[in-house]
Amino acid sequence: MKYYPVHSGYPPYATVNQAIEAAFAEHGRGNVQMPPKVYVTFVQTGDFRTMPAYLPALEIAGVKIVNVHPDNRARGLPTVMALTVIIDVETGTPEAIVNATELTAMRTGAAGAIAARHLSPRRSVTLGVIGTGRQAEALVEATAATLTIEKILAWSRTEKSAEAFAARYAEYDAQAVSIERASDCDVLLTTTPSTKPLVMADWIHEGTHINAIGADAPGKQELDPALLLMAEVFVDDPGQAIHSGEVNVPISTGLYDSGRIAGTLGEVVIGKKGRSSPDAITIFDSTGLAIQDLAIAALVARKEEGYELPFP
Amino acid sequence: MKYYPVHSGYPPYATVNQAIEAAFAEHGRGNVQMPPKVYVTFVQTGDFRTMPAYLPALEIAGVKIVNVHPDNRARGLPTVMALTVIIDVETGTPEAIVNATELTAMRTGAAGAIAARHLSPRRSVTLGVIGTGRQAEALVEATAATLTIEKILAWSRTEKSAEAFAARYAEYDAQAVSIERASDCDVLLTTTPSTKPLVMADWIHEGTHINAIGADAPGKQELDPALLLMAEVFVDDPGQAIHSGEVNVPISTGLYDSGRIAGTLGEVVIGKKGRSSPDAITIFDSTGLAIQDLAIAALVARKEEGYELPFP
Repeated sequence: MKYYPVHSGYPPYATVNQAIEAAFAEHGRGNVQMPPKVYVTFVQTGDFRTMPAYLPALEIAGVKIVNVHPDNRARGLPTVMALTVIIDVETGTPEAIVNATELTAMRTGAAGAIAARHLSPRRSVTLGVIGTGRQAEALVEATAATLTIEKILAWSRTEKSAEAFAARYAEYDAQAVSIERASDCDVLLTTTPSTKPLVMADWIHEGTHINAIGADAPGKQELDPALLLMAEVFVDDPGQAIHSGEVNVPISTGLYDSGRIAGTLGEVVIGKKGRSSPDAITIFDSTGLAIQDLAIAALVARKEEGYELPFP
Repeated sequence: MKYYPVHSGYPPYATVNQAIEAAFAEHGRGNVQMPPKVYVTFVQTGDFRTMPAYLPALEIAGVKIVNVHPDNRARGLPTVMALTVIIDVETGTPEAIVNATELTAMRTGAAGAIAARHLSPRRSVTLGVIGTGRQAEALVEATAATLTIEKILAWSRTEKSAEAFAARYAEYDAQAVSIERASDCDVLLTTTPSTKPLVMADWIHEGTHINAIGADAPGKQELDPALLLMAEVFVDDPGQAIHSGEVNVPISTGLYDSGRIAGTLGEVVIGKKGRSSPDAITIFDSTGLAIQDLAIAALVARKEEGYELPFP
């Protein structure tokens, strides 16, 4: 058994995107075991989630364990930390334990990049960025590995944060702009923890693809429900999306019917589903799947040096 | 974060029994979070189970991951291997990863010992042992830490195995005997993988307590259903017992009604439930709980030296 602290650098997004796409393809083929995430909630401090899965065709199995502790920043710790245990399919031996904190951001970025590549009608795009934290960085970098980024229009609730983000991505002609201006783009990335719609339907033009990343728990939402009704909505996993994705609030209030969901990203990747026309607005509602975590952890475990640990 | 290979010896059963009893007491008070075990089944080789839990009063949280691969013995590996990840409640940081293969046997032994101490009307007992593998050893050793063992009557499908077991426990006047003779005892321990009743109702005398340990998956059973009907049956967890414990087969065939279950071991430990009279036959139906795994892993992590691993 080996432990991978992921000190020695991360795999490039070209490689990560490919591994994540392969996992979504298996999901699209109905060829994975992925029981629902199990939540355990602490009395005052936060929660942790246990995410087991198995991808038979890729011979990958295991579990991600990930916490959410909103007060951690004040202690100098990440809010979200994660560990993935990879189980050998043949013998059941835990073969690798991977520090998955950074990988969690990367696999989310990769899913957005794959969604944009398959759902945006353009190969060369203006990126709109709503929320400029770690997830936004991962999405920009993963997208840059698969599409040409002509320009970035970034908005954050904190103007300084948007400006720092724009400076970091000067190579893509990034600018800090108003939220309405950022929404006028080809591929929009939303990564805020909002519980109220931030992006209004009439700001979005025809042919835009939106990666709705921020909503990952009941009560969270970033998009005007009218936008969901105008758009073709693809999800990573229907059960998880209805429970905690962008569609969760409008479904619970009756503004959106889960029967309108156009398909899953896995079905898009294998060509079974897709946008209906170049003019349609498409949305990818991402909640984060255990199969993504396993695919990226397996990549790290196969490529890097680990600490050898005695087991059994 | 530390890794505990458990190379430096195991805690004594007096300590383990106490920790496991405290966990059951919290369970009896309804003061734990323990979502159902999640099973992932491999195509041909075996399965693995993910068992998260949280004990607020003991400030212990985490997940056990455990496999069952029946063909492992031919490869020189244990059939069952386990790893427990302990999560810090305050920050969500994974603070310890514990090799839990041996601890899984020990925490099962401890639960049986606690059940025997609370449910047997005698402090000084003849132990009947049906099945003489690793679980039987753990049960005998855990029981010896809490009751006086006068004699052991051991039966195994393989006579040689029963004889070797008797030789190992010569200090308790252990003998290899017939299954009927072994059943004539004060505390009976059944630990076989049987799918058909092995222990008949009319072999068991009044006042006997039975730890039914072997059945831990749908289709498994060791006891004559008539014995369940004569006895007062306590379970570790009703949901798990109905799904995969000793009662699972008779419930599914209609021979036993889950409404007859007398209570949980946690309720017995806190004095809320118990045997109705010294003459009653009592049964503890054990399936194995995540709270037991966390309690014993926390004990090891607090007492032993671990390998320091970089995280986050």
